[in-house]
Amino acid sequence: MLEEAVQKKIDTKTKPQGALGKLETLARQVALIQGTTSPVLRKPTILVFAGDHGIAAEGVSAYPQEVTAQMVKNFLAGGAAINVFCAQNGIALKVIDAGVREDLPSHPSLVSAKVDYGTKNFRSVPAMTKGQMEEALSKGREALRQVSGEGCTVVGFGEMGIGNTSSASLLMSLVGRFPLEQCVGRGTGLTESQLLAKKKILAECVAFHGPMESPEQILQTFGGFEIAQMCGAMEEAAEHGMVLMVDGFIASCAFLVAVSREPRIRRQAIFCHASAEAGHRHLLEFLGADPLLSLDLRLGEGSGCALAYPLIRNAVGFLNDMASFASAGVSSHEE
Amino acid sequence: MLEEAVQKKIDTKTKPQGALGKLETLARQVALIQGTTSPVLRKPTILVFAGDHGIAAEGVSAYPQEVTAQMVKNFLAGGAAINVFCAQNGIALKVIDAGVREDLPSHPSLVSAKVDYGTKNFRSVPAMTKGQMEEALSKGREALRQVSGEGCTVVGFGEMGIGNTSSASLLMSLVGRFPLEQCVGRGTGLTESQLLAKKKILAECVAFHGPMESPEQILQTFGGFEIAQMCGAMEEAAEHGMVLMVDGFIASCAFLVAVSREPRIRRQAIFCHASAEAGHRHLLEFLGADPLLSLDLRLGEGSGCALAYPLIRNAVGFLNDMASFASAGVSSHEE
Repeated sequence: MLEEAVQKKIDTKTKPQGALGKLETLARQVALIQGTTSPVLRKPTILVFAGDHGIAAEGVSAYPQEVTAQMVKNFLAGGAAINVFCAQNGIALKVIDAGVREDLPSHPSLVSAKVDYGTKNFRSVPAMTKGQMEEALSKGREALRQVSGEGCTVVGFGEMGIGNTSSASLLMSLVGRFPLEQCVGRGTGLTESQLLAKKKILAECVAFHGPMESPEQILQTFGGFEIAQMCGAMEEAAEHGMVLMVDGFIASCAFLVAVSREPRIRRQAIFCHASAEAGHRHLLEFLGADPLLSLDLRLGEGSGCALAYPLIRNAVGFLNDMASFASAGVSSHEE
Repeated sequence: MLEEAVQKKIDTKTKPQGALGKLETLARQVALIQGTTSPVLRKPTILVFAGDHGIAAEGVSAYPQEVTAQMVKNFLAGGAAINVFCAQNGIALKVIDAGVREDLPSHPSLVSAKVDYGTKNFRSVPAMTKGQMEEALSKGREALRQVSGEGCTVVGFGEMGIGNTSSASLLMSLVGRFPLEQCVGRGTGLTESQLLAKKKILAECVAFHGPMESPEQILQTFGGFEIAQMCGAMEEAAEHGMVLMVDGFIASCAFLVAVSREPRIRRQAIFCHASAEAGHRHLLEFLGADPLLSLDLRLGEGSGCALAYPLIRNAVGFLNDMASFASAGVSSHEE
């Protein structure tokens, strides 16, 4: 059986049994995803999905809405944190315009997948139509197929969208059945009074739209185009047998929607970072996730994936490249 | 003032203030060590100090003593975990024979700095003479000077030595004034009854040698050649203005001795990993250290340094390479 063969390979390496801790768990997971005792990580890629949010008009973010487009341009110019981390760690970066409020110049690293110029303000109407939600899921899948076609076997999911912690908090609360209080945090930097206002607005939005049944209805009502596309891309990545790297709070909420639609994708996901955003720890616990890093990041952009990727590479590296007790002539524990 | 200039540089980067969490702390620390707002990490190197321990004869380790030399040969052949991690993460590796029980073949990656063929068994005599301790400190400094001369500005400290958690536990207890109970753990894999025996033996050793005053006397009585050399190398690295990466339990105990001799080195140390070894968390707390990784490793070899190094590189990378709000045309929080 593969699982036993992988474990045996790990246990004959020149180290005490279990001494590589979580890296051993990672190595096992990647081997089982790829169905081999010698997995390979090819063309690591991070997809950053960007979209604007109607709810931003309610003052739920510390930043003005135009920052979404400005930051996308910053990604394309190579000036953001995610650019630096990807370049240093050997990761390709693609930015997906899932629904930014303005037109963006064409660029080799930009995938044009705009559903609309931002979602509607869900304080009064659903964020998107059913057709737009389906289009977003489908465009996310398409973006993923392109990357898979280029040979990528390990993909990270990040996002940029002013106002998107509001959207993500509601998805977490309604899809995961968490009290809203546990799901709402400061985003990228709200003050205490702004946080209180955000909580009040979001509670009103939930009451306004009333009870909902399916994750799709929740996604349509409160989601973002970048979140819906991420969700579709995650589902597609799982079907392609890829290793999924999940970033912080927003990406984990997108994953929650995806896994509620397709539970089998759970085993392919590596949770990269425990975010400083309030709800993330509750969500990680719910997902049974033990994230690799805990660096108090609250940035998004896929930054947690980019920072954690070297650990995943190192885990696969030890599985493939370390000597065994026998090959190295080292006395093992049991001898 | 430099500290303010560094903080200002961090705060004008295109990200919410503080959003890179611990990476911002790291970037500040490296900038202050190097005395510049644009620090550079050159020729990252990990030094693995190896030595044998007389106390191993008492059955305090899960592995036979010959494994020290076997693992050194494995390092030189490139088959150990530390080899894989260094190769993948762009780190040079040097192995220092501080006191392995057998003669080792010469090798470009091996520094011959043997003080003796292992320490004495401190159950009945001090582990080393005063002269040997001074020789070990001095040879550690010499190994570091060589690396510094090659242009290295960031150096990690790892070790290999069957029996050395016993030595390290006693250093922690006596130098740091911790109850012995808090300092003794399973090492690389003792059973419950073996752990009890180890605790009993170590308590007897403490009683046998009686009260001690100076860290030097404690190091001489209970230390290992690899631990003493690491200690000297850490002190020398601090004098050269280098960034020190401290690995797990053993390296942290060596650091405790070094910092008790020279408190100023604390600010130059980055703690890479919270080990699974029982005493390590107490020691890290005592040192005011917030380690970068917590992966349940219990390997040594400098593996925690090698795995954490990409995060340090990424921290320096964002400080140097990210765009500012002004240069990228992104609206900042305050506007």
